[in-house]
Amino acid sequence: MSSSSSSSSSLSRSETFSLFSLTAACVGILANTFQGDGEPLIASLALSGIAFSMCFAMIRWLGPTFIKAGLKGVDMSKHHKKEIPECMGAVCAVVYLLVLIVFIPFPFYKDIVAATSGGGNRDVMLHVEHVQQGRFLHRFPHSKLASYLSAILCLQSIAILGIGDDLFDIRWRHKLFIPAFACIPLLVVYFVDFGVTSIVIPIPLQPYLGELFDLGSLYYVYMACVAIFSPNSINILAGINGVEVSQSIVVALLLAFNDGLYLLTDYPHPATDSHLFSLYFLLPFLGVSFALLWHNWYPAKVFVGDTYCYFAGMVFVVVSILGHFSKTLILLLIPQIFNFIYSTPQLFGLVPCPRHRLPRFNARTGLLEPSITPWTPERQPKPPIAWGLKMLGKLGLLRVTLDEEGNFVETSNFTLLNLWLVWRGPLREDRLAVEITVMQTVVGLFGLFVRHRMALLIFNADNWSITDTSVPV
Amino acid sequence: MSSSSSSSSSLSRSETFSLFSLTAACVGILANTFQGDGEPLIASLALSGIAFSMCFAMIRWLGPTFIKAGLKGVDMSKHHKKEIPECMGAVCAVVYLLVLIVFIPFPFYKDIVAATSGGGNRDVMLHVEHVQQGRFLHRFPHSKLASYLSAILCLQSIAILGIGDDLFDIRWRHKLFIPAFACIPLLVVYFVDFGVTSIVIPIPLQPYLGELFDLGSLYYVYMACVAIFSPNSINILAGINGVEVSQSIVVALLLAFNDGLYLLTDYPHPATDSHLFSLYFLLPFLGVSFALLWHNWYPAKVFVGDTYCYFAGMVFVVVSILGHFSKTLILLLIPQIFNFIYSTPQLFGLVPCPRHRLPRFNARTGLLEPSITPWTPERQPKPPIAWGLKMLGKLGLLRVTLDEEGNFVETSNFTLLNLWLVWRGPLREDRLAVEITVMQTVVGLFGLFVRHRMALLIFNADNWSITDTSVPV
Repeated sequence: MSSSSSSSSSLSRSETFSLFSLTAACVGILANTFQGDGEPLIASLALSGIAFSMCFAMIRWLGPTFIKAGLKGVDMSKHHKKEIPECMGAVCAVVYLLVLIVFIPFPFYKDIVAATSGGGNRDVMLHVEHVQQGRFLHRFPHSKLASYLSAILCLQSIAILGIGDDLFDIRWRHKLFIPAFACIPLLVVYFVDFGVTSIVIPIPLQPYLGELFDLGSLYYVYMACVAIFSPNSINILAGINGVEVSQSIVVALLLAFNDGLYLLTDYPHPATDSHLFSLYFLLPFLGVSFALLWHNWYPAKVFVGDTYCYFAGMVFVVVSILGHFSKTLILLLIPQIFNFIYSTPQLFGLVPCPRHRLPRFNARTGLLEPSITPWTPERQPKPPIAWGLKMLGKLGLLRVTLDEEGNFVETSNFTLLNLWLVWRGPLREDRLAVEITVMQTVVGLFGLFVRHRMALLIFNADNWSITDTSVPV
Repeated sequence: MSSSSSSSSSLSRSETFSLFSLTAACVGILANTFQGDGEPLIASLALSGIAFSMCFAMIRWLGPTFIKAGLKGVDMSKHHKKEIPECMGAVCAVVYLLVLIVFIPFPFYKDIVAATSGGGNRDVMLHVEHVQQGRFLHRFPHSKLASYLSAILCLQSIAILGIGDDLFDIRWRHKLFIPAFACIPLLVVYFVDFGVTSIVIPIPLQPYLGELFDLGSLYYVYMACVAIFSPNSINILAGINGVEVSQSIVVALLLAFNDGLYLLTDYPHPATDSHLFSLYFLLPFLGVSFALLWHNWYPAKVFVGDTYCYFAGMVFVVVSILGHFSKTLILLLIPQIFNFIYSTPQLFGLVPCPRHRLPRFNARTGLLEPSITPWTPERQPKPPIAWGLKMLGKLGLLRVTLDEEGNFVETSNFTLLNLWLVWRGPLREDRLAVEITVMQTVVGLFGLFVRHRMALLIFNADNWSITDTSVPV
């Protein structure tokens, strides 16, 4: 998966040829969709291919520019510690946003014809039946445009704030709220445009709360929490080459797979619209992410920066909130949730937290080992914490080293990556990234299985199916 | 106008008190609009006050952070050349965008009630008569939301690209097209949402072309040209403390004054909606710009960066395109247009163009003088250029110095600021900024006078007045 060993900032001949061919094919497909009915899904696929090529080439070309501007970092887990460009996620974000904007006329094309044939008489609206009648609801009603735009706004906001974070190195206590600011456009437009704040109540609770329960303003708090959690959770499962991008790709692929389930059902599913919407955001995201992974995979030629992590997390938030499947998203982020909960002892200061907790590179073996927090005989954990640490050690959830007197000498740091290394022993960096990615995939597939097979046990239907617009979470 | 002489990054006690009072008053007004009918124009004013306070405080606080991140520059026109923060326009842009997003529920509030009272049945649309009936059309139909969002998108795009420009120092040949990329969302949504591409033909040409002429896709080219011109024209009328911001404030004030004319007419004007829309964008812009001017006025404590110039220019583009008064905008940018045309000999390489053409600081007198392009006896302009330079010298449009043999020794650089110094002699930096600002105001007022008094000579009516949505440029 890694690119050629050349570290220059130009594309090799075979790369140029491949990217050029891919771009040409995609442009051809795109031009073809203009001729026919203008299939937005095919257009989206073609644009995703173009996004891959653009992103691939720009990451390569802009490397020296980024280094010159001070956006650079040193890879701590290598023998040769040279500076490589940092914050390349910003390139992905810009390419992605450009593609999403250029894509607008495809799903909303029919409305254009209806709207402009009246010579500027924009009050020609499509009726609701019109929207519900198709097997694949490829064309969206005009009112969906505002949702689409609010999603782009939200992603642009997180890109700006992410770049700010990468530039100014904001403290993590403040960082945590960056996605909260970025999701304001999404919530505001949801409020103005959509306003559905009811959730379906599980069957055992229905006698007490009714079938639907209106959360009201609490629903916005819930959405904000999802929006804060998802980007940050991806940002803290980081520290080795490729892991930020590969976990994002897995989540995006699983979400896209889930969307596909709704498009391939035997009956026209009422949520088809929402899931097409989701695919339009996920496919170009996969395009730019694969381009980034190529350069970020071990041994990394570039770093992704916080921008990418926030951005990826926010893409998932946007599609799941607007598509009304935020609970499904949570099922796909189980490793991230585990990592966050597992990190809390250090995040909340119960155990000392070093500036960096990434796995330790053993220069002799070339392998990664769990990084540790050292304890001195003078500075020992307080009794309840000590008890907890020993307990975790016994459960195999922490590596604890004690001296003869029972004093703590060192404990491994509280991150999923370190825990994995405690379990699986020293691993090479790419091996660790592969294993984490496989684990994320397996857990995510299990999550989807639970969501589609088990949900029927506690809910009336797999999806609420009166009308598309009232599909609750 | 300049702030206290303290260059620290904290607010003085009186500043804290003033900003706090202003913010409290604005929050009070804002809360009040919730109680009553929710007047969006008053809410917008209150939010602009809050934007001023936020921006003022953040520019002060973030100074050291910007310098630490390498966003700094040296003021060449001062005795003491110390480094001050650069790119503070980015702070303005972020505050401005946040305010615009928070503002969304105010103008679109009535729709919320209509849309959400049906329990998520979003197909309850307001009828057109409903929109046209009010004296002041404070509430917008739902379909305007997409325009509003596309404007924010466009401004966010220019902010991202402007920050990129400030970080990476892009060459000006590439820079020129930054606004072209940023205006894509505006044009795409205009295409999907609006699609009016007709212009009103002046009376003398009506027998040949008809009353309305459909420019079709050329209309998009026209809009793109306005979008490329306006931000770049503000960016090249720069180089002394305060001039970028003060010219932008003048243009914004004149546009707001023009909008006011439509709100205060005796009869309900069909374009009221467009002009309210415009005010909602201009008022917060004035708020953040005054905060920036306070710090950027002579002697500058911060630089604004290309971000601000692009951003300001794009605000004007957005309001004038969506409000259908882009020709009025062009009348208000006459000094910028003159500056651009006057610059062409150097921009297009007919005359050598040094890296910086800002006026020369005479350290002895403390005054600014025109900066010059030197000529050597070996390197003289070609005959037609030489003739042109001498001609401009005779017309008083250039300072030309010749030696006894008639060879060029030096010519002043081709910028409006240098030309002004040729005319008015050496001036102190703030005096020059004041004079340019006054000139911009006078020319702009004259432009508005022409637009409203003279337009009737060549057009049937001051504004096309069948329906609001079909008001052409």
